[in-house]
Amino acid sequence: MSTVIASKSEHTYAAIVDAALEMALLEGIGRLSLGEIAKRLGISKSGVFSRVGSLEALQQAVLDEYDRRFIAAVFQPAMPLPRGLPRLNSIVDNWITRFANPRQLNACLYMAGSFEFDDVEVPLRERLQQGEVRFRSALRRTVKQAMEENHLRPDTNPEQLVFELYSFFIGLLHDVRFLHDPGAETRVRNAYARLVSTYRSFNYHG
Amino acid sequence: MSTVIASKSEHTYAAIVDAALEMALLEGIGRLSLGEIAKRLGISKSGVFSRVGSLEALQQAVLDEYDRRFIAAVFQPAMPLPRGLPRLNSIVDNWITRFANPRQLNACLYMAGSFEFDDVEVPLRERLQQGEVRFRSALRRTVKQAMEENHLRPDTNPEQLVFELYSFFIGLLHDVRFLHDPGAETRVRNAYARLVSTYRSFNYHG
Repeated sequence: MSTVIASKSEHTYAAIVDAALEMALLEGIGRLSLGEIAKRLGISKSGVFSRVGSLEALQQAVLDEYDRRFIAAVFQPAMPLPRGLPRLNSIVDNWITRFANPRQLNACLYMAGSFEFDDVEVPLRERLQQGEVRFRSALRRTVKQAMEENHLRPDTNPEQLVFELYSFFIGLLHDVRFLHDPGAETRVRNAYARLVSTYRSFNYHG
Repeated sequence: MSTVIASKSEHTYAAIVDAALEMALLEGIGRLSLGEIAKRLGISKSGVFSRVGSLEALQQAVLDEYDRRFIAAVFQPAMPLPRGLPRLNSIVDNWITRFANPRQLNACLYMAGSFEFDDVEVPLRERLQQGEVRFRSALRRTVKQAMEENHLRPDTNPEQLVFELYSFFIGLLHDVRFLHDPGAETRVRNAYARLVSTYRSFNYHG
């Protein structure tokens, strides 16, 4: 919300998206319901409906808000750092920190959604795919910059590296949230160190 | 079913578990319902109930049957091979082949279930956890044997290696089923080759 004085309906809209994001993180984006959000906020279902338009629009708004927060926590702090491995290391560090804290509302809407909607065709699934593709493209761009800076070897396959990295993120989330394994964060940090060690240029020791 | 002549009720029980496994693979183990299974088989809900006892017992039977088929396809073919990397390579190869085929009913009940039940406490969740822990223990044992055989370096951390491997399996399933990415199988095979290359003993080239 960029205006200094937000109108009451803007407040309510933000509150609806906030409550919906919390519900989606706990129960899955597919379980969102306008009625349940109305109940939680103590307003009428038609009040929710008139502000968000439809369940689909609310799902979309929830994912947009999730993306905004994720980018602010994971990508933006890395931007002032030098291009290449320093920036990639920072993004990975932020990503791991975000997924590793079991006390935070840290479920990933994308990971959970991807298993929930893996074989149905709905607009929500398309939106989830697009969001993931965007995050992975951002990782790939950062890897390519690290190759240009000669931090990573010129024969690095960015697609391959990003697949491995992304697998570790999913694996971390899985081990933290499902197995409640306190060793998961250390393991994923070791995994990243080993991964980078096999791609790093011989003359770069940053 | 080990008896040569199975009774009619055994046939029906096997048919129920079969239909339930198919439904669980497509829609998630959490969406199983006795009524839906009865409808699909054209028998009464009480007929299903009298044979399986309860929804919880059916979920259990479905996971047992899933495990049986998974072990037969992934672990058993590797057992005649020499201990160590040949056996580990075969298990990984079978696992990848099983997850990589998008035309098969290849959803993994564990992966999908782990994201569906990541923050609720139900007996089904416990059963899913136990099953995963068992598969990962089997992988860890195989890694330890490869260390004993001096195929993998003595400073290999089996827990670490299995985390990385398991992450690749989840990543593969995710990319095949959610992103429909035809390059996923090649990427996971490359990832495994790179992973093993960093753990392999210098004097083993199997």
